[in-house]
Amino acid sequence: MADNLFGHHISKQFNAELEDIRHRVLAMGGLVEQQIADAIQSLVEGSSGLAQRVKDNEIKVNALEVALDEECTQVLARRQPTASDLRLVIAVIKTITDLERIGDQAEKIARIGEQLAELERPRNQYMELQHLADGVKAMLHEVLDAFARMDAEAAVRVARRDEIIDNEYEAVMRQTVTFMMEDSRSIKRSLEIIWAARAMERIGDHAKNICEYVIYLVKGKDVRHISFDEKEAAARSDR
Amino acid sequence: MADNLFGHHISKQFNAELEDIRHRVLAMGGLVEQQIADAIQSLVEGSSGLAQRVKDNEIKVNALEVALDEECTQVLARRQPTASDLRLVIAVIKTITDLERIGDQAEKIARIGEQLAELERPRNQYMELQHLADGVKAMLHEVLDAFARMDAEAAVRVARRDEIIDNEYEAVMRQTVTFMMEDSRSIKRSLEIIWAARAMERIGDHAKNICEYVIYLVKGKDVRHISFDEKEAAARSDR
Repeated sequence: MADNLFGHHISKQFNAELEDIRHRVLAMGGLVEQQIADAIQSLVEGSSGLAQRVKDNEIKVNALEVALDEECTQVLARRQPTASDLRLVIAVIKTITDLERIGDQAEKIARIGEQLAELERPRNQYMELQHLADGVKAMLHEVLDAFARMDAEAAVRVARRDEIIDNEYEAVMRQTVTFMMEDSRSIKRSLEIIWAARAMERIGDHAKNICEYVIYLVKGKDVRHISFDEKEAAARSDR
Repeated sequence: MADNLFGHHISKQFNAELEDIRHRVLAMGGLVEQQIADAIQSLVEGSSGLAQRVKDNEIKVNALEVALDEECTQVLARRQPTASDLRLVIAVIKTITDLERIGDQAEKIARIGEQLAELERPRNQYMELQHLADGVKAMLHEVLDAFARMDAEAAVRVARRDEIIDNEYEAVMRQTVTFMMEDSRSIKRSLEIIWAARAMERIGDHAKNICEYVIYLVKGKDVRHISFDEKEAAARSDR
């Protein structure tokens, strides 16, 4: 590494390192998006090949998390970044934890798919789960986009959608519990649907966390534990 | 701040800052422990006063998370720590995220307690939940202890216990699902029990994450995504 070079070249090398980190976060995000898509398709179609791909990607996602954490630690130790560079490194350290946990949830959904494949399929082909999954997949895609473009306002818009996901999740829950009460033979299947819905709702929560890190990265403001309106004000503010 | 002093005094001041961070992490951990204890007591006894205290402490926990994150960022920017000082800061940034999420789960358990208070109580007084809660509360207490004493081997022992928690959780789940199938009038209450058990299982997962950060902090090795035997070897190794 070009640790001992000075001036322009150090900065170029340092920039390249930060760029590399950004690219790898987006690559990790892409893998996790693929995991969600595969997991839900595997669940809806009962296809075990896709479930295996989710597991294979989990190994890659875990390895990327560890490698990126190491890379960030190296940058902190060697480059001693400040201001927006430091915020990028901190935001990445946090983001990759949530990405990895989204991957865990995708794997859970794939496993639930394997359980459901052994049970009778409902007439609606798990439409409600497909819908929820589409919502959280879009959230993740758009927050990764906001991260790539350093767009804090887009990140707030994505974060707001977590409420819609939560409402949809509650609706799936109510409907599923009603089915369970009406027909106790449906309890096993209903519980699997509940687990899958909950995993998706958690993916939405993790995506929302990443939105907050993007706002922190761009604006330097910690917007956790405050209202959406306050987050929006922070995202619109000049620094 | 004593930014411009040199030599011994800088180091003393820097040490004091790191000590302050460690103390505040332990204080935050203590609050979260209290949240778990209050939440489960509130659930088992149906007492709403304790549920309120869980919510009040949630605000303090969130504030501590934000303040500690800010303090860690300041230390990174001003002190540019390396080696074990850098690992402490990184481990703290990760640990407080998991502590805060444990607090969220405690709040969830307290809310479930409020739901359960309106339903008929089971003869066993939710003994199975009390037992699970005792297990995860002990895990959290001991990993905070391991953090305070910088004891990687203790952290591995605590992490291993997450498997026991997972098995107990599975047992509660199986039993509760059986009740649901036998008596569909118990579905509402059973689902609440399932949510509470799941929240506790997640607390165990977060406590296990903190164990991994303690091992990283003490030994400088990233022990995520590897077996317990490998973690143990890392915890025993000389650096």
